[in-house]
Amino acid sequence: MLYKRNPQLNKNGELIHLLSVEGLPKDILTHILDTASTFVSVSDREVKKVPLLRGKSVFNLFFENSTRTRTTFEIAATRLSADVINLDIARSSASKGESLLDTIANLSAMAADLFVVRHSESGAPYLIAQHVAPHVHVVNAGDGRHSHPTQGLLDMYTIRHYKKDFSNLTVAIVGDVLHSRVARSDIHALTTLGCAEVRVVGPKTLVPGDLKEMGVRVFHSLEEGIKGCDVVIMLRLQNERMSGALLPSSQEYFKRYGLTPERLALAKPDAIVMHPGPINRGVEIDSSVVDGKQSVILPQVTFGIAVRMAVMGIVAHNVREAA
Amino acid sequence: MLYKRNPQLNKNGELIHLLSVEGLPKDILTHILDTASTFVSVSDREVKKVPLLRGKSVFNLFFENSTRTRTTFEIAATRLSADVINLDIARSSASKGESLLDTIANLSAMAADLFVVRHSESGAPYLIAQHVAPHVHVVNAGDGRHSHPTQGLLDMYTIRHYKKDFSNLTVAIVGDVLHSRVARSDIHALTTLGCAEVRVVGPKTLVPGDLKEMGVRVFHSLEEGIKGCDVVIMLRLQNERMSGALLPSSQEYFKRYGLTPERLALAKPDAIVMHPGPINRGVEIDSSVVDGKQSVILPQVTFGIAVRMAVMGIVAHNVREAA
Amino acid sequence: MLYKRNPQLNKNGELIHLLSVEGLPKDILTHILDTASTFVSVSDREVKKVPLLRGKSVFNLFFENSTRTRTTFEIAATRLSADVINLDIARSSASKGESLLDTIANLSAMAADLFVVRHSESGAPYLIAQHVAPHVHVVNAGDGRHSHPTQGLLDMYTIRHYKKDFSNLTVAIVGDVLHSRVARSDIHALTTLGCAEVRVVGPKTLVPGDLKEMGVRVFHSLEEGIKGCDVVIMLRLQNERMSGALLPSSQEYFKRYGLTPERLALAKPDAIVMHPGPINRGVEIDSSVVDGKQSVILPQVTFGIAVRMAVMGIVAHNVREAA
Repeated sequence: MLYKRNPQLNKNGELIHLLSVEGLPKDILTHILDTASTFVSVSDREVKKVPLLRGKSVFNLFFENSTRTRTTFEIAATRLSADVINLDIARSSASKGESLLDTIANLSAMAADLFVVRHSESGAPYLIAQHVAPHVHVVNAGDGRHSHPTQGLLDMYTIRHYKKDFSNLTVAIVGDVLHSRVARSDIHALTTLGCAEVRVVGPKTLVPGDLKEMGVRVFHSLEEGIKGCDVVIMLRLQNERMSGALLPSSQEYFKRYGLTPERLALAKPDAIVMHPGPINRGVEIDSSVVDGKQSVILPQVTFGIAVRMAVMGIVAHNVREAA
Repeated sequence: MLYKRNPQLNKNGELIHLLSVEGLPKDILTHILDTASTFVSVSDREVKKVPLLRGKSVFNLFFENSTRTRTTFEIAATRLSADVINLDIARSSASKGESLLDTIANLSAMAADLFVVRHSESGAPYLIAQHVAPHVHVVNAGDGRHSHPTQGLLDMYTIRHYKKDFSNLTVAIVGDVLHSRVARSDIHALTTLGCAEVRVVGPKTLVPGDLKEMGVRVFHSLEEGIKGCDVVIMLRLQNERMSGALLPSSQEYFKRYGLTPERLALAKPDAIVMHPGPINRGVEIDSSVVDGKQSVILPQVTFGIAVRMAVMGIVAHNVREAA
Repeated sequence: MLYKRNPQLNKNGELIHLLSVEGLPKDILTHILDTASTFVSVSDREVKKVPLLRGKSVFNLFFENSTRTRTTFEIAATRLSADVINLDIARSSASKGESLLDTIANLSAMAADLFVVRHSESGAPYLIAQHVAPHVHVVNAGDGRHSHPTQGLLDMYTIRHYKKDFSNLTVAIVGDVLHSRVARSDIHALTTLGCAEVRVVGPKTLVPGDLKEMGVRVFHSLEEGIKGCDVVIMLRLQNERMSGALLPSSQEYFKRYGLTPERLALAKPDAIVMHPGPINRGVEIDSSVVDGKQSVILPQVTFGIAVRMAVMGIVAHNVREAA
């Protein structure tokens, strides 16, 4: 551990950065979800916007391109009345030989209040949070294979919305867990929130080795893994992160791990189906399941705006101290 | 026809999407132009902005890059006090295998109020309008060779501004009509608004075959086609859409179809010259004509802001129903 | 000279464009610095924003990509409550054969109030200022090797902040002066503000020939050039503008011209170290100097926001007349 104290919390135990779901206590997770519930009326446009971050300056620092995630944060910040600056860092002065930490020091000096950071290197948001000016708060929007905490939190929000209580739930995460930062965030959050049973289902080549230590049950058969579940979280094949040998054909993959109505019928009758998107119909999930009654994939997107509003609103109002 | 009812109108006959000028009744076109006239004082900055879309969320979805058009919509939305999110879809998760309709469903779930769509495929905005969530309105900012309705409408606004009444006018559209989505929108709008005579002038290779059925007079000589006209709309050669064999040399083209002061003298003395831009001086039009007294090319741009404000203001306030 | 009168000033001698520090009288420079000092409380977020440009439309026209400079202008405009439109001109309709001046005429017609222009060609902002519509003000954000006036002004602000008075100062500008638009702006500003002695230090291949005529003392030894200085402005090697033969190795360069603590000790004990960024540690400057007590590199960035706010606020409120 690099830190004696959790770098995400100040001395009063309040959230000042969101870097990872790992290491956040249950009461912080619950506080974020409770706060998010007050913003759902904004995320679905019943209320147009709120003035919580009026005059605050949010920088979207995307070292790795992601239009979808960048957009959800931009929307969330805008609906909190913040001013948003998008920085396409990939095309920026990094190419002029400047180091990451000098770029960050520079942007801190422009007096931003909040950095939303996406980076291909695991741990980059931690490094940035250690070095930003004392008035800047950092929110991780995905780093390498490590973490994607707001996606994890919106998954928790969605599950709580439909299932109320975690203590009796069985949740299966299905697919390319190895390359998924979402899966890792979900597992930590579910465990912390007291989920009864967390399962991971996928081919041996796409399931990491350290899951059992995290209290997760691993299955290599979808039929077995899905049996009796309350929640099924489907993941796409991250082809862009796989080399040729590892990569299963879409057809082969669908045959063994695609979520079809027949397989879904093995879960509880009121089980919900989730997916972080983008969806590849006919690869990891059948079209009829995406569009079916049990799918809550689109509500996830709407809840995601509310959760990101909650996270930004919370960290920006908690006072930072020296680490 | 895919639709029994016009997908642009709700049951009360009110405009809920702007997809094409084709099929819009005269009273709707006139309503847009009348509304635009109330926004000209905003488009020319006499009035700074109006609160008509305050708190509304406009997504600029540009599947095909067009800085110019994107900018005019962003300006129009900003002057209506809307929040604008620009999505560079070409670089987005489309590349991760997601379908157009899943992208659209996803963005709908982020609770936008208005999608401004540019796409290289004809008909894409129709497809999108069929599938967006019930609260989303769609405005076509150009699709393939098919349609560019706000450009058509701003041309109508410009003509009405300078000529008052359509019923006695002769309008010539000159140049690469084959590849122009503007020409097609102009022809439909002029016909609907009761223009006395619509002419198309261009080389045989660049004039489509179906114009006569639309009541248009076709000329292959610019001198003949321009004779006695009240309005001359010049189009640029869309070289990027032509293969080598079809492509005339700039010099050859200018010799036969370039608008020179001498040729313009064949039109009525008070004829106006229009161009949707970008202009290629010395190819389709002589520099002295661009900068001459009869040119209304720059006022077109300013009116374009007012027309886009009108369109967005109108569709966003009409209630959608099931199609 | 193309102009009889200074194109940056109106008949009353008020600043209407900022194109270059060259040719601006001392009272204008002082007025900008004085105005900037009123905005420092906004640039460091003590005050969130001011309504000086509310409803005004600022276009960021970046013909050359520069995320860092574009961001500082966007922040400055946003904190003045202006609406900002970013135009990525490099990817725009310039590629469709339109000329620079037609692009500018077009954007003028969209009724912007202020163009912030970055261009790889020296003099482009002058050309643009001659041709924009009468209501548009132009601010140069860097043109070729020619000028980068807001960087020059923020350097002056920083020097004045720490040293109060220019009349007793010795300032050394060190490094790749040949390719630096910052150096040229700094020299003009320092001379106009009455700086006692301006020095340039660098290898013969990277120092332009016309400096002595500008009253500058040229040194090729860093040890000699830095002796007794109050202010040391370090410049990075602009490798991207050099061909192979000219380009020194980073190691060689650091050995002769890198600012180390030992060399800095030759300057006055209270000398400040400045750098326009991006920094290349271990090439033109030692890491310990960047992070040392004499470094004011990060305050420069914060002051830069205040200076850009001042420039935009001033030009946008002065009335233009025919040139």
